Amino acid sequence: MRITEVRDLTVPLVGGVANAVVSFADHTVSLVALVSDQRRQGRPVIGFGFNSIGRFGQSGILRERLFPRLLAADPDSLLAPGGEGFDAAAVAAAVMRNEKPGGHGDRAGAVAAVELAVWDLNAKLAGEPACRTIARRFGRRAPHADVAVYAAGGYYYPDDSTARLGDELRGYAARGFEAFKIKIGGAPLDVDLDRIDAALDVAGDGSALAVDANGRFDEDQALRYAEALEGYGLRWYEEPGDPLDFDLNRSIAKTYRGAVATGENLFSAADARNLVRYGGMRPGLDVLQMDPGLSYGITEYGRMLSVLEQAGFHRGQCLPHGGHLINLHVVAGLGLGGCEAYPGVFQPFGGYSPACRIDGGRVTVPEDPGFGLEQKPELAPFLDRLGET
Amino acid sequence: MRITEVRDLTVPLVGGVANAVVSFADHTVSLVALVSDQRRQGRPVIGFGFNSIGRFGQSGILRERLFPRLLAADPDSLLAPGGEGFDAAAVAAAVMRNEKPGGHGDRAGAVAAVELAVWDLNAKLAGEPACRTIARRFGRRAPHADVAVYAAGGYYYPDDSTARLGDELRGYAARGFEAFKIKIGGAPLDVDLDRIDAALDVAGDGSALAVDANGRFDEDQALRYAEALEGYGLRWYEEPGDPLDFDLNRSIAKTYRGAVATGENLFSAADARNLVRYGGMRPGLDVLQMDPGLSYGITEYGRMLSVLEQAGFHRGQCLPHGGHLINLHVVAGLGLGGCEAYPGVFQPFGGYSPACRIDGGRVTVPEDPGFGLEQKPELAPFLDRLGET
Repeated sequence: MRITEVRDLTVPLVGGVANAVVSFADHTVSLVALVSDQRRQGRPVIGFGFNSIGRFGQSGILRERLFPRLLAADPDSLLAPGGEGFDAAAVAAAVMRNEKPGGHGDRAGAVAAVELAVWDLNAKLAGEPACRTIARRFGRRAPHADVAVYAAGGYYYPDDSTARLGDELRGYAARGFEAFKIKIGGAPLDVDLDRIDAALDVAGDGSALAVDANGRFDEDQALRYAEALEGYGLRWYEEPGDPLDFDLNRSIAKTYRGAVATGENLFSAADARNLVRYGGMRPGLDVLQMDPGLSYGITEYGRMLSVLEQAGFHRGQCLPHGGHLINLHVVAGLGLGGCEAYPGVFQPFGGYSPACRIDGGRVTVPEDPGFGLEQKPELAPFLDRLGET
Repeated sequence: MRITEVRDLTVPLVGGVANAVVSFADHTVSLVALVSDQRRQGRPVIGFGFNSIGRFGQSGILRERLFPRLLAADPDSLLAPGGEGFDAAAVAAAVMRNEKPGGHGDRAGAVAAVELAVWDLNAKLAGEPACRTIARRFGRRAPHADVAVYAAGGYYYPDDSTARLGDELRGYAARGFEAFKIKIGGAPLDVDLDRIDAALDVAGDGSALAVDANGRFDEDQALRYAEALEGYGLRWYEEPGDPLDFDLNRSIAKTYRGAVATGENLFSAADARNLVRYGGMRPGLDVLQMDPGLSYGITEYGRMLSVLEQAGFHRGQCLPHGGHLINLHVVAGLGLGGCEAYPGVFQPFGGYSPACRIDGGRVTVPEDPGFGLEQKPELAPFLDRLGET
């Protein structure tokens, strides 16, 4: 059994939005295909992966560094013991040959796109949804059939922003979402508090509403917001400061009684360990959002989970960044706390496939083989293009 | 005054060597050219920069993200106040537009190659060596005319390794070097101690010999080596563990009385601040090796220096990774502790130009305009290629 070819395609995101820090209008995502020598229904079995959303396509790193190493590796060294498809950890190690330690940034997303494609490939070879392959590989009895999901958005609009925010969230509620996340930090505090009030009109209760500052605040601002947010009993207060400013995070966690969420901009177990060591995150309370698609894939995500669990956190506190089918399978397979969704934006990657029912604040995991990316109409044409021989 | 064009060239490194972790045989470096509309002697003035050595060329990030943003920026926004050429900080900010916080890896090197080219361009416009431009910009009276330099190498050889190590270091001594750095961690401890003895035969004294583990050790190994190295009075013990394992570094710094060196794999002020906060580095003793060419350039390096000086470190403790002309000018211009050199390897970027005399353990800074890369015979053909219109 062999990987015969690797390919990538840089896909622009449509549905441009902006958070407090960046515009996503020019963002791209790398879609990777691992073509195997195995056939099903007369066609080669192909594994697809992509590097989540938000940190750009990585064609340069893929083509110049990772793909040549993968194709140069001894094919037998990439096989899982016991004939269960390919070994995702071995593939990740092969593409990382001669890379230096540290510097977990763009490279981590490029490796993830390749590593995730191995899981899709393995699940297709086994004829099962990827969540089942993931659960088995990590020694779990069975994946969850559905997982908690919340609608992320709550953008700033040029005109009539607070009223439109309410409309936006009512739209999500009509689609079956019961929990929401909105942006803060892009307006003065008093405007943001009005926005929170408008959002609570839809969410009903603070426990169904999270707020996200996208790493924008310095320590003073972060503390000022923490004080103002305290009374709302919000679901969480996300990324108050720079993701690497662990002292700032710890000082928020010390004073703010509600949950703090962070981690989407930490891309390795080494960085996650530093968050646990220095960031003051509280077992049983705070939310960890590391995203396997930006962090070397599921193999490294498993290492992050070990770091967390050894420090007393439970996996229900993990809600990965990136609302898409791959993370839906990861959350279901590993038994994590839930998923996000960005309804209508970050296409063709964002969101789920028609088979995924969203109801009562939960999303069902589809039974299609692999991650089921082929069943997502927006994404299927790109898979076809990349899969054509 | 305008930047009219930006170009890059991916240049393979020759003189392949290996450290304890990686082989450099397939490594590349990105050379960047900023073409201005200014002319000297009838030719356009072009600034050149490159992303140091060791973390690969970044053509993908440069072409897909950074160059389009630079060319889309308002040209006036890139000019230094007072007409003193271009504003390196503004250029770095322009190419970082819509990038998220955190994840300081490959991107940091790509940005650095562009930002450093601005310093070369500014110095050429002023008709002066870059060290002078750098010193002025950072409010220093004058650059140093020469700086301390040590020869890094001390490789493992397939046969007769320890004897050949002595030959290698004697070759460096014959070229005017008086301080040396050798690899450790690629052999059992007792072999490494024999290597240190062989190196001391050339260095004469532990204070002229540093050892580098390239981030290879876990905490037990790092402590075991620390104990064994203690008696030698070495110049420093470099990167015992993973560059992000600040607890490990702190535990070495607590028990090892000699200097610990690290930082070459930290690529932002945020990461350097974490080293200072959590890594146990000792003001007045330990060595900090952050490399502007891997870390968003001299603008961000200046932020790192502020972090360090606010924490009580002095800039004499800073010896940037990367033995080449750019860092020679940075060290001279900012008054840092010294430079490294990798004699004969990492060509065409490694080492200095013929005008740089190495004698008595110091290297003179050339007077050629800019970084003087044009005066380095191995590099000049690549500059010519990239500079041709």
